[in-house]
Order: sequence, then structure tokens, then C-alpha cells
Amino acid sequence: MKLGRVIGTVVASTHVEGLEGVKLLIVQPLDKKLEPKGEPVVAGDGLQMAGHGELVYYVSSREAALAMPNTFVPVDDAIVGIVDHVHEDPGA
Amino acid sequence: MKLGRVIGTVVASTHVEGLEGVKLLIVQPLDKKLEPKGEPVVAGDGLQMAGHGELVYYVSSREAALAMPNTFVPVDDAIVGIVDHVHEDPGA
Amino acid sequence: MKLGRVIGTVVASTHVEGLEGVKLLIVQPLDKKLEPKGEPVVAGDGLQMAGHGELVYYVSSREAALAMPNTFVPVDDAIVGIVDHVHEDPGA
Amino acid sequence: MKLGRVIGTVVASTHVEGLEGVKLLIVQPLDKKLEPKGEPVVAGDGLQMAGHGELVYYVSSREAALAMPNTFVPVDDAIVGIVDHVHEDPGA
Amino acid sequence: MKLGRVIGTVVASTHVEGLEGVKLLIVQPLDKKLEPKGEPVVAGDGLQMAGHGELVYYVSSREAALAMPNTFVPVDDAIVGIVDHVHEDPGA
Repeated sequence: MKLGRVIGTVVASTHVEGLEGVKLLIVQPLDKKLEPKGEPVVAGDGLQMAGHGELVYYVSSREAALAMPNTFVPVDDAIVGIVDHVHEDPGA
Repeated sequence: MKLGRVIGTVVASTHVEGLEGVKLLIVQPLDKKLEPKGEPVVAGDGLQMAGHGELVYYVSSREAALAMPNTFVPVDDAIVGIVDHVHEDPGA
Repeated sequence: MKLGRVIGTVVASTHVEGLEGVKLLIVQPLDKKLEPKGEPVVAGDGLQMAGHGELVYYVSSREAALAMPNTFVPVDDAIVGIVDHVHEDPGA
Repeated sequence: MKLGRVIGTVVASTHVEGLEGVKLLIVQPLDKKLEPKGEPVVAGDGLQMAGHGELVYYVSSREAALAMPNTFVPVDDAIVGIVDHVHEDPGA
Repeated sequence: MKLGRVIGTVVASTHVEGLEGVKLLIVQPLDKKLEPKGEPVVAGDGLQMAGHGELVYYVSSREAALAMPNTFVPVDDAIVGIVDHVHEDPGA
């Protein structure tokens, strides 16, 4: 999984069957200092509750579909958790 | 999923079994400002309706096959939705 | 899928079970101007007919195995079509 | 698989169903000299025993879920082994 | 698949269930001139016979597990063949 921050929303005018009810968020990947790094992805919100600006972790593979209400859908990025805090080991 | 723009079409002279009826579009990946970034991919059009210049989101993995009429095909990029608009959160 | 050009052949002295009869070609990925970009991959030839120098499109994931005669094999790049021509949209 | 080092822990405030009991560690990928290279990933600990600073190898794909107690979960990075030592061949 | 060269071995002190008997080799990816390029991966040896310094081709996805004695394991890089020679097409 990767760490990211929710920075926006995608509103679709049409989509393939199976994506009904899948909320699409724009997630900015973060580096180890939790700074933006790389290009944003469009992720399904597996939690149905990730809010703007929230720090999340997300999957980027076929496994993403398992986080959707209907698991047999063409989704390959999904938010699977909201981060309370990151604990970096001293000296690691 | 990633955001992209349809910039062309691929016409095949021959292909493996199962790709009959799969429309192949060239999709240019976009960055967060919706500017071109990286190399284009050849994506199946899961919607059968994505037009030239349209802003779309697409999957880039095994899940892509799920967006095709016949889901048991060697396709790993597929357009799964057309974007109406992207809402970027203020201050995010 | 990605666009590529066949630039060579790999001859194996030994391989895992299931790869009998799979022709292995070296495919150079291409950018949007159809110029070489990035490192070549070793792709199974799902068509059994892709020739030297030909412009092809290929899959790079688990889906690749679906293009092989025996689909339950460890192959993750496969040529799935030969390109007749690429039509780039004017102004796109 | 890739070589990495455990550098921290992620504590979630909420997560999708199925991630109960999955310990999430921050793993820094390493290069061939075992120096940090690239951005850390959030990996499930398939061993339930990887400790801070430990040298591990991890998978980064759908296969990661197979290392979890419940294999049908949206996890795409998982630690699958702890390295005792790496033997680099002389002259290779 | 990608071309690589075996440059070392990983000895694990512990690993997840299912990796018993899987020999782990360090494989250096190669570019089209067969020169080292990018970071090494830890690959299962599907052949049980790849030796030090040998030129191999390997898969880097879920398909890798299909090359293992037990195919339901968390392995995502596997050597699937040893290269006898690479034939680059003149003028390609």
C-alpha cells in the first residue's frame, strides 16, 4: 500500500457497468516525509468516508477491487484505510 | 485509475482471438493540472463511446479486462469512465 | 497495452514447464512518435506470426498469459496484435 | 520480491473490512548495496514478527494477499521473509 | 519477461509458509545491450538450476507463482528460463 492525501473528487458523466455507487477521489501520493510526490491517482473510496485532506493508505492493483461494494469491477486503486498516525522508528 | 485524454486510434491488421470488437484508443496520461505526462497507452474502450479529445479515467491492470464485452481477454488498459469535471479541494 | 517494435529473438537453453512452443521476441517499447523509449521486454508471441521490425501492441501483466496457447503459464508480456496504422487526432 | 528495511509503523483510525489484525509496517526499499532507494511502502507483515530495522524481502502485487491470515483482502505489499544474509557472487 | 543476470543469493532466517524449498536469487535487470540497469530483484528460481552469472529471463507479476513448485505462494518475481543466446535483428 502507499500513503496519500485526498485532494479532490472526480465527477463522471458516464462509466462502465459496476461503478455505480463508487465514490472516486483524487489521491496525491506522499513520500516518507509525507510530502507530495508523483502524479495523483483516481481511487475508489473503499471506506465511503474518506474526507478532503485526509491522510490515507491505498492499494494500487487488482486487490483494489476487493475494497469495493461489488468486488468484480474494473477498479485498480482504492483507499483501504485512514491513517491516525505514522510512527517512524528512531534511528531506523 | 488514472486521468487521461483520448488522442488517437489504433487500427490492427491482425490480433489474438478475443479482441474482436474491442475499440483501441490511444490515451495520453495527464498530471494533476490535466497536462500531458508520460507515454500514451493503447486502451480498450470499455464504454464504446469515448470520443476524440475526451477526458477519461482508465484502469491499467488485469482489472481492465472486466471492462470488455468478453472479460477473459488479454487487455490491460481500459477506459472505464468519462469525466464530467474534476473538483480540486481548496487548500488541499 | 503499449506500442512496440520487434527487434530480436531470445533462444532459451532451458525453461520452466509450460513454455514449450512459446516464441520469445524482444520488443522495444515506443513513445507517441513511435520512437524507441525505455528498455526492451521479452514477450511471448501470442500471434505466432509477428515478424522482425513489425509494429505491435502488447500487454504487460497477468493478462499476457491469456494470449498463449496454454493460458496457465508464467508469461507476463505478450504481443496481442499487429498495428496496421495509428491515427493521431488532429489538434488532440 | 524486493529487499527492504522496516523503518516504522502505520496506525489506522479506520480501515476496510478484512484488515483486522494486519500489522502495517513502513518498509524502505533498498538498492543492491542495501542503501535506501525510492519511496517507502506500507506493507502488511505476513510474519507477524518483523521488527524495527530488520532487513526483509517483500512482495508488491496481488500475491501479497496470500501472505495475510485472511487471503481475500485488499493488500498489495507484504513482508514474506526476514533476511539472514545476502551473498553476492564474486565477480558477478 | 525481462532479461537479467544472477548475481547472488538471499538466505532467509524465517519466511511465510509456502516458501519452503524456494531458492531465492538476486537478479540484476539488464538493458538491451545486456548491461546492468535498475535495481536487482529477489526472484524465486523456477528452474532450480540457475547458476551464478547466468543470463536468464524472469517474470515480475502474479504469474511468477506459477513457476514455483507450489503455485499458491506469495512470490512475484521468478526465473522462468535460461538464455542460450539473444539474436538482435540487423537494422531493427
